[in-house]
Amino acid sequence: MSVALVGAGPGDPGLITARGLELLRRAQVLVHDRLVARELVQEAPVGCLLISRDGLAQEQVNELLVTHGRRGRRVVRLKGGDPFLFGRGGEEALALRRAGVPFEVVPGVSALTSVPAAAGIPVTHRGLSRQVTIVTGHGAAGDEGLDHAALARTPGTLVVFMGLEGLGELSAGLIAHGADPALPAAVVSRGTTDEQGVAVATLATIADAGAGLRTPALLVVGEVVGLAEALGPAAVAERLVAAL
Amino acid sequence: MSVALVGAGPGDPGLITARGLELLRRAQVLVHDRLVARELVQEAPVGCLLISRDGLAQEQVNELLVTHGRRGRRVVRLKGGDPFLFGRGGEEALALRRAGVPFEVVPGVSALTSVPAAAGIPVTHRGLSRQVTIVTGHGAAGDEGLDHAALARTPGTLVVFMGLEGLGELSAGLIAHGADPALPAAVVSRGTTDEQGVAVATLATIADAGAGLRTPALLVVGEVVGLAEALGPAAVAERLVAAL
Repeated sequence: MSVALVGAGPGDPGLITARGLELLRRAQVLVHDRLVARELVQEAPVGCLLISRDGLAQEQVNELLVTHGRRGRRVVRLKGGDPFLFGRGGEEALALRRAGVPFEVVPGVSALTSVPAAAGIPVTHRGLSRQVTIVTGHGAAGDEGLDHAALARTPGTLVVFMGLEGLGELSAGLIAHGADPALPAAVVSRGTTDEQGVAVATLATIADAGAGLRTPALLVVGEVVGLAEALGPAAVAERLVAAL
Repeated sequence: MSVALVGAGPGDPGLITARGLELLRRAQVLVHDRLVARELVQEAPVGCLLISRDGLAQEQVNELLVTHGRRGRRVVRLKGGDPFLFGRGGEEALALRRAGVPFEVVPGVSALTSVPAAAGIPVTHRGLSRQVTIVTGHGAAGDEGLDHAALARTPGTLVVFMGLEGLGELSAGLIAHGADPALPAAVVSRGTTDEQGVAVATLATIADAGAGLRTPALLVVGEVVGLAEALGPAAVAERLVAAL
């Protein structure tokens, strides 16, 4: 393959796939998201052309991939999370397809499961949740806002990929449309990295509890959040101390 | 850590994480799902005790992990996909927690994104879908069936982790509750493996089109399925031939 769209995973560099790491170590051109782990960028071989995607429009990224791909270079496009879940990988794949440049998609560990997991939250759990609804709180230009009424009625676990500025409006909107204010809710900021921050509260109080956490962040709403107390990092730390 | 709950990814052995592979290569006890790639089981070191989870009840698996974890062994519980998305990893984590056995969760690439990707389908795509709803078609004992009316109203992409026996009932139920029969729909069987099979049709015709495919399978419903024609394996093969 000429161009590989590779998911870097959620932040922890150990969560890239074996295949992704193999491609990265042979790359001639690396186009990477700003937020992928520095350790992963450093896996690129000496002489690899490193290009940060930061500050580039999506159209410019597409053009870069097509240009270097046409020259037959081994191009790796390293993207946070998974390329095809809020990763805009489909747009890059279509641009490459239209240009006749061969490509490969290497899925990654999405923040969807890994970031809640880092706070001790399984997004599904027998008896608590067998449905997961995923939305993004960043409305792309021209998109409509989130449908609070529909989301408030949705059973199971709600996961919102978001900045934090919309947290108050979203939680209030869900409650206004009938969601239980006492539903457990968590914000996990920079999950799986050394900078991870977690707030666990209820839907009514999560906006206050999460104030001060930094983006990128994930909001999780649902009964599964109640497992964080038993399975979260603090509990893990206690167990470790007890095991010494 | 004593016990690691490790996601093996969707089938392709290259899609395990670097961290998961590292733990696997140092395991003293490996408890693995039947459907994880044989190549991964073979990564366990010589002398590692190999235990297939096949035929064991969940409670017995929990006990195995606790027993070997208490002995201080390096135990890897290798699970298909991600441990915390329809993986029952939360139950195993709770059992370990209750027993005071230290554990680590290593997320994996879920079938959610990787299996559709292997058929050329991004589950989100600008202008087509910014919401994903995930359910399982396997009702656990005591669970209620799927709410066809609610799912028929849900915008964006619907992904169903399922056997194939319920496909006709589900597609008919969604249409009976107002879903567009012309919505693109795909079944991806054994995605990312050498045995992958794909059927792309509409909601009205997917049950017929998918007949004969084998489990495990994923059903994807939504406009994003229309991208499979441009981004799917056949298109990739064409491009490769053209590139020779």
